Amino acid sequence: MLGESLVLFRKSDGTPVALHDRCPHRLLPLSKGMVKGDLIQCGYHGLIFDGSGRCVHSPTQATVPPQADVRSYPAAERMGMVWIWMGDPARADAADIYDLPQYHDPLWRATEGDPLYVKARYLLLCDNLSDPTHVTYVHPTTLGSPDVPDVPVTHRRQPWGVTTTRWTRGCDPVGLFQTFGNYTGKVDRWQHYHMYVPSTAIIDTGTIVAGSGTDRDGGERRVQILACHFMTPVNEFETIDYWLMVRNFATNDPDADEKFTAQLRIAFAEDKDVLEAIEVEEQAYRDGPKAGLDLDASAGLFRRMVAQRIRDESTAVAAE
Amino acid sequence: MLGESLVLFRKSDGTPVALHDRCPHRLLPLSKGMVKGDLIQCGYHGLIFDGSGRCVHSPTQATVPPQADVRSYPAAERMGMVWIWMGDPARADAADIYDLPQYHDPLWRATEGDPLYVKARYLLLCDNLSDPTHVTYVHPTTLGSPDVPDVPVTHRRQPWGVTTTRWTRGCDPVGLFQTFGNYTGKVDRWQHYHMYVPSTAIIDTGTIVAGSGTDRDGGERRVQILACHFMTPVNEFETIDYWLMVRNFATNDPDADEKFTAQLRIAFAEDKDVLEAIEVEEQAYRDGPKAGLDLDASAGLFRRMVAQRIRDESTAVAAE
Amino acid sequence: MLGESLVLFRKSDGTPVALHDRCPHRLLPLSKGMVKGDLIQCGYHGLIFDGSGRCVHSPTQATVPPQADVRSYPAAERMGMVWIWMGDPARADAADIYDLPQYHDPLWRATEGDPLYVKARYLLLCDNLSDPTHVTYVHPTTLGSPDVPDVPVTHRRQPWGVTTTRWTRGCDPVGLFQTFGNYTGKVDRWQHYHMYVPSTAIIDTGTIVAGSGTDRDGGERRVQILACHFMTPVNEFETIDYWLMVRNFATNDPDADEKFTAQLRIAFAEDKDVLEAIEVEEQAYRDGPKAGLDLDASAGLFRRMVAQRIRDESTAVAAE
Repeated sequence: MLGESLVLFRKSDGTPVALHDRCPHRLLPLSKGMVKGDLIQCGYHGLIFDGSGRCVHSPTQATVPPQADVRSYPAAERMGMVWIWMGDPARADAADIYDLPQYHDPLWRATEGDPLYVKARYLLLCDNLSDPTHVTYVHPTTLGSPDVPDVPVTHRRQPWGVTTTRWTRGCDPVGLFQTFGNYTGKVDRWQHYHMYVPSTAIIDTGTIVAGSGTDRDGGERRVQILACHFMTPVNEFETIDYWLMVRNFATNDPDADEKFTAQLRIAFAEDKDVLEAIEVEEQAYRDGPKAGLDLDASAGLFRRMVAQRIRDESTAVAAE
Repeated sequence: MLGESLVLFRKSDGTPVALHDRCPHRLLPLSKGMVKGDLIQCGYHGLIFDGSGRCVHSPTQATVPPQADVRSYPAAERMGMVWIWMGDPARADAADIYDLPQYHDPLWRATEGDPLYVKARYLLLCDNLSDPTHVTYVHPTTLGSPDVPDVPVTHRRQPWGVTTTRWTRGCDPVGLFQTFGNYTGKVDRWQHYHMYVPSTAIIDTGTIVAGSGTDRDGGERRVQILACHFMTPVNEFETIDYWLMVRNFATNDPDADEKFTAQLRIAFAEDKDVLEAIEVEEQAYRDGPKAGLDLDASAGLFRRMVAQRIRDESTAVAAE
Repeated sequence: MLGESLVLFRKSDGTPVALHDRCPHRLLPLSKGMVKGDLIQCGYHGLIFDGSGRCVHSPTQATVPPQADVRSYPAAERMGMVWIWMGDPARADAADIYDLPQYHDPLWRATEGDPLYVKARYLLLCDNLSDPTHVTYVHPTTLGSPDVPDVPVTHRRQPWGVTTTRWTRGCDPVGLFQTFGNYTGKVDRWQHYHMYVPSTAIIDTGTIVAGSGTDRDGGERRVQILACHFMTPVNEFETIDYWLMVRNFATNDPDADEKFTAQLRIAFAEDKDVLEAIEVEEQAYRDGPKAGLDLDASAGLFRRMVAQRIRDESTAVAAE
């Protein structure tokens, strides 16, 4: 993660622990070793570390030498995921971790996808998820509406990031909603793309019978999906997108889970294909000029907010 | 090609188009998009380009922004291949493209081979095709005459490159001619290696009954092959050899095509093996000194002519 | 070897020859050519070299040009292996080559293992073979004694390197000895790790019935293995461990050879796994500080002796 290798394990009470995955003695990754209760033991010479990274035992000698501790990272569990703070530990605050109310609501159903490994820098994924217009071209059979490519998009700065919104009125339902709604005529469709700094996306998208009103109306014929993407940079050029989907329909239908995930797998493989091809060009092109379009507004704003956050944290660390 | 990625497509009238394979908006290769009539559409946001590389449509906005055009390359079709001019477009002249009269002659038969991908710089292929002596050692069962390694070679500078010639008189026919001629005794064999600057080789090789005369004599027992190699640098260290063979025998025998191509596949795999092993050493050795032999004369002259052509074109471009 | 590519062949009398594997004419590896009697011929243009690397024939010309010789390396055969001297030929002395008396003794049996290719620098293998304590953690089922991790280790400087010794008294026999000894109770076990500068290890390890005495006592119930590792650096980051095992038991039992080798294959795959994981970290970590333990004494001393040897040879060469 961020170019650092981590070893994760659980203490006997279930608490997650994240340590730097490198024994300070001979550099063997600790993930090659064994967990023993609340401790982890190196697989080369048997040094033992506790959950704070402190070395508590070194073989063939009574006293643990200095410099034998490993770095530990603040870790917490939310929504079925372990969140790790890679920055200054003093600034870690578990209250900052994103949480989605509907994830905990029994009227909704959450399904977890396979983590999507993408050989592309995380900001390319953020660009993609700040931009509802790409679905027409990248996902024509699953998420896209081929009939309405030029519906206008609005951009709104939020305290935590950027929201991009598109309403497509009086259109045919797209593949995914076709499968799960039972529409017989035209629909109104919303796409609210919420991008949270630095790399969480909540894609709120749904369909109501055409003319029913806002995204809160539509009654039983209101089909809504909250697609949550937690984009984790593996290093400068690779990202894992841990995603889950929360929906307000077919909530008691486990068969629908697989059908639903299958459609999304197709869609995300399409994104992966596009983003990896772009990453290759990015590396060849470096920072050459690009043609800007109006549809880039959210992505541009979001990138500036991320850059500002990085500057703020660097300044704060330097000032200490 | 030359380290640039290209997308090729045909307009509705069949004209080939070559564009830089990178959308100027988000850098997705245009080859991931779709051809629509005479136009090509990017697969990410739907920008549309014409055959000259001009962006004619950008979604969600009325006006195409500046900087949205892509580079186009002059392209023309000859002998079943698309030829692309990677240099200054003002200097492109389709009349300069090599053409072989026998390719169009119904008394001859042309067969196209599989493009041969070689992990070696193109000049190593040019060296190889400037040098008839290597066939004895590299192609002992197909093209080589193991009994006559030391037949002298003559070198001639041409306005367009270098010709290397070897006559082997009174020898046994080599594997390939054994298969297709019906010789019962000794033959005379010629090898004329014509190398055209920068990287086209026409290998004119044939056999007549020993003592019949020149390479124009021999009547029905005159078997001739024109092996054409169009070596295309993919980048600094890799080359694709697009090749075809034009022959004056078995011209109405489709079975012979496969037999013929099979023998050449063996021979060219032998060259590939040698050239790729040399490329590895070249990269390790850089420009260390090498032992020169008399047999290198054509290769050396050809390399100097290529270097001169590159200097001439660079000077001309700089002077504009 | 040491980043140089070599071609090896035998002269008609069986003498091994080692030449630089690169023809000085066009750089084709000579290993692509053919051995002809005491000579080797390049596979591209037929240049011929003798066992001293001298070019004795160049085709199409009467006189061999200067600069056409290749480097030869002093080579000698010992214990079924060819030993090559990569340094100043004037300093090569076949009398310096390691030899194990038991290898030639009919009361012992030698078996050769598959060369073990390890993507790790050779000094990591030397560290490993200077350190008897790792077997507890890396080889728990084959070589390790899980019950006695903290038995003390002694280190002794030798004229030729370092010996590390550990006696584990009154322990259970480890997997490998369990298989071949027929112990019914506790044993005493010795491990003498002899590391010879620069990279030969003789691991002398054995078991006697507990209380029998020294490593020379124990009579018929004395089981001893001499594991010989000849670690050959392929380049800066990769090593081949040519190994053989010499044992004093089951010497007339060919079935035991396979059983024995099978167990060692497991053990060495465990080392390979550990060492390759460390090499990755070494390359990421460069020369960052490490925590030192008492058990590193032999490895540290051995590394200093190797560094001294390198300095001595460099000084001697510079002084000439």
